[in-house]
Amino acid sequence: MSIKVAILGYGNLGKGIEYALKQNDDMELVAVFTRRDPSSVKTETNVPVYHVDKAIEMKNQIDVLMLCGGSATDLPKQTAEYAKYFNVVDSFDTHARIPEHFANVDASAVAANKIAMISVGWDPGMFSLNRLYANAILRDGNDYTFWGKGVSQGHSDAIRRIDGVLDAKQYTCPVEKALNAVRNCENPTLTTREKHTRECYVVAAEGADLARIENEIKTMPNYFSDYDTTVHFISMEELKRDHAEIPHGGMVFRTGKTGKDGCHNHVIEYKLTLDSNPEFTACVLTAYARAAVRMNQRGMCGCKTVFDVAPADLSPLSPEEMRAHLL
Amino acid sequence: MSIKVAILGYGNLGKGIEYALKQNDDMELVAVFTRRDPSSVKTETNVPVYHVDKAIEMKNQIDVLMLCGGSATDLPKQTAEYAKYFNVVDSFDTHARIPEHFANVDASAVAANKIAMISVGWDPGMFSLNRLYANAILRDGNDYTFWGKGVSQGHSDAIRRIDGVLDAKQYTCPVEKALNAVRNCENPTLTTREKHTRECYVVAAEGADLARIENEIKTMPNYFSDYDTTVHFISMEELKRDHAEIPHGGMVFRTGKTGKDGCHNHVIEYKLTLDSNPEFTACVLTAYARAAVRMNQRGMCGCKTVFDVAPADLSPLSPEEMRAHLL
Repeated sequence: MSIKVAILGYGNLGKGIEYALKQNDDMELVAVFTRRDPSSVKTETNVPVYHVDKAIEMKNQIDVLMLCGGSATDLPKQTAEYAKYFNVVDSFDTHARIPEHFANVDASAVAANKIAMISVGWDPGMFSLNRLYANAILRDGNDYTFWGKGVSQGHSDAIRRIDGVLDAKQYTCPVEKALNAVRNCENPTLTTREKHTRECYVVAAEGADLARIENEIKTMPNYFSDYDTTVHFISMEELKRDHAEIPHGGMVFRTGKTGKDGCHNHVIEYKLTLDSNPEFTACVLTAYARAAVRMNQRGMCGCKTVFDVAPADLSPLSPEEMRAHLL
Repeated sequence: MSIKVAILGYGNLGKGIEYALKQNDDMELVAVFTRRDPSSVKTETNVPVYHVDKAIEMKNQIDVLMLCGGSATDLPKQTAEYAKYFNVVDSFDTHARIPEHFANVDASAVAANKIAMISVGWDPGMFSLNRLYANAILRDGNDYTFWGKGVSQGHSDAIRRIDGVLDAKQYTCPVEKALNAVRNCENPTLTTREKHTRECYVVAAEGADLARIENEIKTMPNYFSDYDTTVHFISMEELKRDHAEIPHGGMVFRTGKTGKDGCHNHVIEYKLTLDSNPEFTACVLTAYARAAVRMNQRGMCGCKTVFDVAPADLSPLSPEEMRAHLL
């Protein structure tokens, strides 16, 4: 019997999950819940849309609820709340607040005998997993995470708030020289500026003071002042034509030493190159939704992260198929 | 209390585990077992060496036994045998025979209430894990595994068996053009020849017919005839100076499509660059030894692979530390 999935929040991530479920024969999307007027929301695959207030009364028709809200305000409330009724999966990505989020969600999920899988995606998520595996293997070493080339929504938004800016897209780019030093086991100590550059494509209002806008971007604390930043002014037409997508990616490295007096160097590198950040994130959430349901069916409950999930639970293949074809 | 580890078989892999254990404070090496005369074996860290016949009578002093024999003849017997008395970890790497090995070992381990972790290392092992994760995430895609640049022991041995060859080292090298095609999401169908080349460094006996040796290498079925092979004749001195190490590595890729009509491409790449193949393999086995003991302490038993182990069980960190620092 297929796993019945519902989505709460129909933005880029929710849509990505809808597409991902079409690629997974053992799962089906049974409902989309929205805070908007349901009649105003048209899904890509004609799945029924309900108002979010209907979710709890439909709990017996749903094996796992995918929470597709934001980490700033939605998930800190939603995950703990819906874990009282559903197995849930979220992509909570505020690294510093994960311990607090875990504690809140765990209390709900344990009481309700449900699985709540938090902080799923690629960072946190697949990058975290690679940090854990690599640290468990190479005990004496150094970790490096680089992001990009990819769109940072937060930085793009920060530019858009500047007076005279109509629209903008910001790309985070890893610095090639730093990547090479890491790959060569030089174990560099890298400053913020040495790791990433920031490339901005900005549409300014007619007659706006471009020099002032460029200066405001480059000196913006936290967002840009610690980086080498390039600003390109382009037309709205160019922005829409050349910068409509949401690519991202990055690399996790661990370099370490083994053997007599640490005489041997090793490099573990995990690299993602993603045309669509939300669609890839959605694929990761979908695999962990499968695991959440299986773990709950085995009687497990509580808050879980990617660290707690045996890889086999993510795959639609049988253990025998996995051992024969993937091991 | 630290995890008490013993090693059976003191070659490159056994020695690598001895070094790896020095980097893991929560584990200690209590014994090395050998088929040789124990007085002839000197360990790197002065750990006591016993004849293998002593192993079973020491079972209560050992939490996990690391089986460091070969996959051709040792492990098919040893793993099932020693799983009757110990939690065990092996690096069985004959991919085609894994299902059979699993069944034999599982019967022993279940009957004895022990955990037997098989096929641990990097391929099978970390590469397998990356195949599984990437397949669970990108459901519509293609898998590619490349090896090298690194030493193939089997191919080096095959060259050494040729008449007139004193010694040899063979490197397997991935073809850059194929790597680029994969990374560019061209989804190429690659022949054996298109994926890897073979580079041979050969020391010939004085007066040997070099042209005949080179021809015998290049036309050797299975080993070389399907590859573009380069043969370099060098002196014994050069071989010892420039080719004494056992580096290896490789890459696992999955490329896949998501979204409306599969309009977005994604590349997942996992890359290892290893100065010492046996020492890195030893580090992986050591992490899985920790997991084997923990899983057995929780009441689990039977044959397991890397697919069955929750990542958290590999790490010496507490769940709270992992979530705070690695997630």
